[in-house]
Amino acid sequence: MATWGERLAGVRGVMLDISGVLYDSGEGGGKPITGSVEAVARLQRSGLKVRFCTNESQKSRKHLVAELRRLGFDISEGEVTSPPPAACLILKKRGLRPHLLVHDEVRSEFAQIDTSNPNCVVIADAGDNFSYQNMNKAFQVLMGLENPVLISLGKGRYYKVTSGLMLDVGGYMKALEYACGVEAEVVGKPSPEFFQSALQEMGVQAHQAVMIGDDILFDVGGAQRCGMRALQVRTGKFRPSDEHHPEVKADGYVDNLSEAVDLLLQLVDK
Amino acid sequence: MATWGERLAGVRGVMLDISGVLYDSGEGGGKPITGSVEAVARLQRSGLKVRFCTNESQKSRKHLVAELRRLGFDISEGEVTSPPPAACLILKKRGLRPHLLVHDEVRSEFAQIDTSNPNCVVIADAGDNFSYQNMNKAFQVLMGLENPVLISLGKGRYYKVTSGLMLDVGGYMKALEYACGVEAEVVGKPSPEFFQSALQEMGVQAHQAVMIGDDILFDVGGAQRCGMRALQVRTGKFRPSDEHHPEVKADGYVDNLSEAVDLLLQLVDK
Repeated sequence: MATWGERLAGVRGVMLDISGVLYDSGEGGGKPITGSVEAVARLQRSGLKVRFCTNESQKSRKHLVAELRRLGFDISEGEVTSPPPAACLILKKRGLRPHLLVHDEVRSEFAQIDTSNPNCVVIADAGDNFSYQNMNKAFQVLMGLENPVLISLGKGRYYKVTSGLMLDVGGYMKALEYACGVEAEVVGKPSPEFFQSALQEMGVQAHQAVMIGDDILFDVGGAQRCGMRALQVRTGKFRPSDEHHPEVKADGYVDNLSEAVDLLLQLVDK
Repeated sequence: MATWGERLAGVRGVMLDISGVLYDSGEGGGKPITGSVEAVARLQRSGLKVRFCTNESQKSRKHLVAELRRLGFDISEGEVTSPPPAACLILKKRGLRPHLLVHDEVRSEFAQIDTSNPNCVVIADAGDNFSYQNMNKAFQVLMGLENPVLISLGKGRYYKVTSGLMLDVGGYMKALEYACGVEAEVVGKPSPEFFQSALQEMGVQAHQAVMIGDDILFDVGGAQRCGMRALQVRTGKFRPSDEHHPEVKADGYVDNLSEAVDLLLQLVDK
């Protein structure tokens, strides 16, 4: 068994998932995970590069960062990689005009995008906006296109809030895929392009970076497929069975972000 | 190429899909497909056994039959095989207590079923009841079960109403399958059990029966897999590409129900 020193050798950048690692979201802005506020601050004071990489698509980055700052995290919008800005780059590059099925609050992220006469559909975690009427409208737009393009901001099955589990965008993506006979393009973890853009923004190579997340498939598996290392925290949506996952094995399992940062900083300080 | 006489030899029973064959549903009760009212009447006067086999799960049989009678069809509830009563038989046999995600109007079909302390979820074409809140509740019930059972009344991708295409239950079934990591049990076409129960109710063997439907996969393909023959009508959701479907070939394609009945009665009269 490799030592932590061997497993984390040469790390220069740390990529952090947000929900389930920094905090548990929920009513009233959620609550921080014990030790995470201090852990992030220690990481930011270290020589390591830090970037936050989230699949959050129900809140704008502005709102998300404001929520985190209220909880005590010292984070700015520019440090966060999230699906809506990544999707905007793709839409512009390909001349796509989306019909948006997103949360009202996230619509502002698409303010610079032409949404007239749509030639694609973009869905995100729309929460209560996933009404039958709105889903049917997205379906009808796709069925009316000669070459239907469906872009999904993430493909999560569910997420955890303080009050319990909540359906995420993934199921709704599957519903439209099935009804329209199309395959969605996913913008967000575990898509390799998404990790690569976060690495680029952080300015480190994949082999120099470690991902810390609570999702064994999307955070750990996704990062490893890009050549990164990955630690899973036993917080958020972590389940004990994740440590014996049939397909994905993390480079390490830690109780929480604080323990991960302890390990990383011991190595950096050497 | 076989003649019609060869293709339809020995037919003793005719199974008819309803929506897209008898009528197009929609605002104000929909409208009959030209010639279908008379075609059904001629079939009922012939020596052939007749049964209506539908995936309709948004209306109770009572409502559906009332709607058809208003349009001029002489049909009784007892002649219709539809998913809700078939599901009730399964629920009773297996001691399942469903959480129902169905249209308000179809809830009455489950009046005799114990829905306390649910140990399964039943979804149907719930229309506007497919809100995020209701989907999330069904998701949470499934996630809370040790052995989650999801029963879906049909798995249609979409259906056609007079005003256009509408999302059917299939997409929502896929959403719950994906989010919960379960596989749904489908009650309705193309499930072989569903065709077999309709055959039993009609009192003929599969090789003596012909299905007439507008859906190449669920009506034609489903019936053929049960040993029945099947004709596709060029009405309802029929698309010209269906006649060159890569997997399913109907025993015959006809312009509408009226033409199918002409062919059948010519052979019976001989």
